[in-house]
Order: sequence, then C-alpha cells, then structure tokens
Amino acid sequence: MRQRIAIDMDETIVDTLSRHLEWYNKEFDQQVTKADLYGKKIYHYVVEDHVARVRSYPNHPEFFVDIPPLEGALEVIRELHTRYDIVIATAAMEYPTSFNAKYEWLTKYLPFLSPMNFIFCGNKGVVNADYLIDDSSRHFVDFKGTGILFSASHNLLEAAEKRVNNWQDVHAMFL
Amino acid sequence: MRQRIAIDMDETIVDTLSRHLEWYNKEFDQQVTKADLYGKKIYHYVVEDHVARVRSYPNHPEFFVDIPPLEGALEVIRELHTRYDIVIATAAMEYPTSFNAKYEWLTKYLPFLSPMNFIFCGNKGVVNADYLIDDSSRHFVDFKGTGILFSASHNLLEAAEKRVNNWQDVHAMFL
Repeated sequence: MRQRIAIDMDETIVDTLSRHLEWYNKEFDQQVTKADLYGKKIYHYVVEDHVARVRSYPNHPEFFVDIPPLEGALEVIRELHTRYDIVIATAAMEYPTSFNAKYEWLTKYLPFLSPMNFIFCGNKGVVNADYLIDDSSRHFVDFKGTGILFSASHNLLEAAEKRVNNWQDVHAMFL
Repeated sequence: MRQRIAIDMDETIVDTLSRHLEWYNKEFDQQVTKADLYGKKIYHYVVEDHVARVRSYPNHPEFFVDIPPLEGALEVIRELHTRYDIVIATAAMEYPTSFNAKYEWLTKYLPFLSPMNFIFCGNKGVVNADYLIDDSSRHFVDFKGTGILFSASHNLLEAAEKRVNNWQDVHAMFL
C-alpha cells in the first residue's frame, strides 16, 4: 500500500506571504520584505492598528486568485504523486470565504490531483496520513504521522525534528 | 484521551433527500416519495432524461439553505460532544459550489461545534477518527476506524456490520 503524504497549502505550496506583503505594502505605503519577518508572522510585525486589516486579507475573494506557487512545488508534487498518495490539507475553516478561491487554485495548478484528495479542515490532527508537510508546527501536535516543517520566514527560529527548506529538500527526502 | 467520532452531513445529519424530492417533484410535476426509493438513490429512480438535473441540484447555492436536520440529530450530537471529540466530515468536494452553504448550515445548526472540527473532503479514508457514522458505506473502505452505516432509503438493502437506523440508535450506542 502506498504511503500517504498530506501537504499544506499556504506558505507550503503557495507563496501566500508574498501576496500578504504585496497587499499590505500597497494599502499602507510600506516596504516590508520577507527578510523583515524573520521568526515572526506578518501580524506580529505590523503596527497594531494594521493587524485587523492584514488578518482580513485572506477573506477577500481575490486574495488567492493566481497566487504564485513556491519554486518547485508543482513539479515535485507531480513527481510525488506517481509514488505516493497525495492529499492537500488546508486550514480553510479559518477563512471560510476562501473555499472557492482555494478550490479554483488547486484544480488549476495541480490538475493531476483529484479533488477527492483535497481536505479543507481546521485542526489537522483529523488527517489520516503518514506525513504532513506544513509550515505551521501547531498542526503536528495531534497529528498521528510524521510532521515535516516546511521553512517559512515565521518558523525559522523554531526547533523542528524534521525540516525541509524548500521543495528540493522534499524531493531529496521522498524521491 | 477522548475517542473521536466523525459524522457525515448529507442524509446523516441533514435530510438532503427530502430537499432533493421537493425540488424534483416541483420541477417535473412528480410525486416521488422516500418509500419509492427503497434500496436506490434518486438518480437511479428517475427517468434518464432527468438524471443530470437531479444531480445538479446540490450545486445550487440555495439547495442547502435551511435543509431540516434529521430527527434527533442536533440533540444527540450536542450530547455526544460532551463526551467525544466530534468532527463533521462531509464529501463537499463533489459539490464545490456547496462549500459556503454547508459551512453556513453547520455553524447555524451546530453552533457548539468549532468550525476547526469541520472537514470538507472527498475520500473519507483521509479522516483520522475512531468511528465514522455515514449513510454511504463506500467511505468505510479506506477508513481506519469503525464504520457505522446510518440508515437511509438507498442503503436499506445493504448488509452492514454496524448499522444505526436513526439518532436514537446512535444515542444508545454511544451514550
């Protein structure tokens, strides 16, 4: 039986942070870069008056439209798909208005995956898989399989039992 | 640690079939009842020319709005919630345009459950739970826990290792 790899979407497959920075910098006339967010989330970096706005961006129907994938993500997932059972597990319940945009993105950029393998959830402890590749280590707490932390600016100061820095690392680990 | 019960939505918590029949009978001037669907799905009962229309109903944004819950469902789930970890696992990927309506329904009728415990998926083999209560036995094939068939017109001729006929039976089994 094939092993199952669950893969997070935001900041693991798609470059959500770039979209966040793009919208934030435009709205508030700022020049925040990913380097500024070393070890923290954008919510923890911006001034308090801006937090609610920044948090609301992913609820906008346009936020996920054509967000660029992270380098190598699509190619490596396509290759993993030939040897593993791949499911995409995204914490969509945090942004319920994002359901359709996320579904559109996934079917457009990962057309070789069946939507039957998409999971829109909250807590990822409910996902039954051998591995979970995710930039948020909180999802590993209740997860029964092996959590693999996907490096993102906000998690670079975290200790991780297993970490991949990019999709090349994922390729090296599984293929 | 609490045991986790995953519960299907359509024809387990909500009376989807009544809505289907209501819309079908109205559109095609018919009088189909649940009794007519003993052992079969509505798609297998109606004449071939109507199948595509009937299949399309759940894609309509109004289809899930205020569908009535099945008798006892809300009360028993509320009680289960005090002793078990409850997740709602619905095969929403089959009807992607239903995401929002399903989310609205769940937050309105089961407000004591956190949306973090909702799972919109396709294949339910990806759900990590001890039990899955579902009217579709196909979801039990890859499911690692115990599948419990919730009786619905279409499954009454199926053999089932564990079957509940209604929410009273669920109460008796778990509480």
